Amino acid sequence: MNGGAKRVLVTGARGFIGRHCLPGLAAKGYEVHAVSSAAHTGTDAAWHRCNLLDAAAVETLLAEVRPTHLLHLAWIAQPGVFWTSHENLAWLASGVRLADAFFAAGGRRAIGAGTCAEYIQTSGDCTEDETPIGPDTLYGEAKAAMYFALRAAARDRGTWAWARLFFPYGPGEPPGRFIPSVIDGLLRRMPVACTHGMQVRDFVYVDDAAGACVALVDGEASGAYNVGSGTGTSLAAVGGLATAVLGHPELLRFGERPTPAYDPARVVGDVGKIRRDHGWTPRVALADGIQRTIAAQRPSVEGSR
Amino acid sequence: MNGGAKRVLVTGARGFIGRHCLPGLAAKGYEVHAVSSAAHTGTDAAWHRCNLLDAAAVETLLAEVRPTHLLHLAWIAQPGVFWTSHENLAWLASGVRLADAFFAAGGRRAIGAGTCAEYIQTSGDCTEDETPIGPDTLYGEAKAAMYFALRAAARDRGTWAWARLFFPYGPGEPPGRFIPSVIDGLLRRMPVACTHGMQVRDFVYVDDAAGACVALVDGEASGAYNVGSGTGTSLAAVGGLATAVLGHPELLRFGERPTPAYDPARVVGDVGKIRRDHGWTPRVALADGIQRTIAAQRPSVEGSR
Repeated sequence: MNGGAKRVLVTGARGFIGRHCLPGLAAKGYEVHAVSSAAHTGTDAAWHRCNLLDAAAVETLLAEVRPTHLLHLAWIAQPGVFWTSHENLAWLASGVRLADAFFAAGGRRAIGAGTCAEYIQTSGDCTEDETPIGPDTLYGEAKAAMYFALRAAARDRGTWAWARLFFPYGPGEPPGRFIPSVIDGLLRRMPVACTHGMQVRDFVYVDDAAGACVALVDGEASGAYNVGSGTGTSLAAVGGLATAVLGHPELLRFGERPTPAYDPARVVGDVGKIRRDHGWTPRVALADGIQRTIAAQRPSVEGSR
Repeated sequence: MNGGAKRVLVTGARGFIGRHCLPGLAAKGYEVHAVSSAAHTGTDAAWHRCNLLDAAAVETLLAEVRPTHLLHLAWIAQPGVFWTSHENLAWLASGVRLADAFFAAGGRRAIGAGTCAEYIQTSGDCTEDETPIGPDTLYGEAKAAMYFALRAAARDRGTWAWARLFFPYGPGEPPGRFIPSVIDGLLRRMPVACTHGMQVRDFVYVDDAAGACVALVDGEASGAYNVGSGTGTSLAAVGGLATAVLGHPELLRFGERPTPAYDPARVVGDVGKIRRDHGWTPRVALADGIQRTIAAQRPSVEGSR
């Protein structure tokens, strides 16, 4: 068990959530090893270059780092593409191998990133051990498969947690998604075509989502955990929070974009379980998070003028 | 789409169920390509040697056969081991790659072998679209993962079916499992230590299970389908059917073996969905199937005297 050393391997470490996890893990006393598909250096972690879709490269990486903990965030994440791409299957096969090899090599605890899209569509709030698994998208199916694979990999060998992320937002969210598009349009004074806007979603600020991942890495209980705010807000109301800061509500053209094929009325997570088991609770209110996101997005727009 | 040719690739083709599928598929007009990990020849199919855990070998096989249909039965199946072995994960990763590569290469319809152990433990009968997925064993978790992976692989590319096998039995069942052990003991006049025997299971004769797989390959509807008899019988009652033929009920020592860790009281499948969608219904009654199994097992025991 490598004495008391805690070495965490973080995949997807340059991603939207991953990059926010590194300081928190270091603060908890972990030796942080971060994986990137491209060469990268930084003082926030020991950086390793690895193509996770290459099984042999993953074996080499594990032998080199000998991690006690795994935070596996890497996955296809291209906005608009990840919901339907069969590349999800390559990430699933890779994740199955990684989880198995991690525990086979003596790893103690693995955390994976799931999604609210694993749950059956329901108008009630999603509760981990009550709401059935019943994904309705390719992405949700692949993540549901990875959830069961992680549980299986950990059996008799270690502990695990599965972070079912609801709707993370904040600085660094890939452009093209709802909140960055709205802010970008308002900052540029350009109209933004939106769907009907009545969909209720559970938005969680990226620092909070990363904090949840850190709490799960550093925790002991095994299980699936919703990572959300616990409250639902319609897209129209989120737009309202942005226009309260930036004005020009007339630029948000709700109803101009067609309703997407996958568009449940309400997706909100109960976050009582992660609070009870791991002491994590979200801290950043939506209005505050939107303000921070605007502040972060402003320079890039003003710089491009 | 290769004109009207129907070429089916069968993995696990020398396994307990697989070997019984080959004649049925040929009878339906399929060009049957069978996969075995060891060299094998036979007139029932074109045989291919392939290690399915080797990704490159699988790609070569698919390029060679160009199957329109896939019946993927290969998996770890060692009695007493498969419930808890992490080798399940290697088969899962392999299955994910195979399903993805099959559809990517133009495959039209894929059938996978699942298990009743994917369902949450329940004392009610399992119904495909009502009973939640909630496996409680490593094997069940890996198969549940493969179920979601198969659905994902088929999305926008083809059709699929997932055969949730209940308790197949009959000639060729691996020794060490309940029914072959009981028959072996009775034929040898040796005592058989059994668990309490009150567990109710849904036994399905191997020819029937194979017939269901053939019907699913040749069908069109996509979905998960229970493959069972639709009725439950306690292990003690199964023992009674064997002693009705062979006598010596005193040899079956129920209660002498400890209760296994995974031992739900009742596991029975509703088989209405596969009948409605694919016209399949089990034909061999349990008493008849036990008699046939005894007849098949008798020569090997008598030969060994």
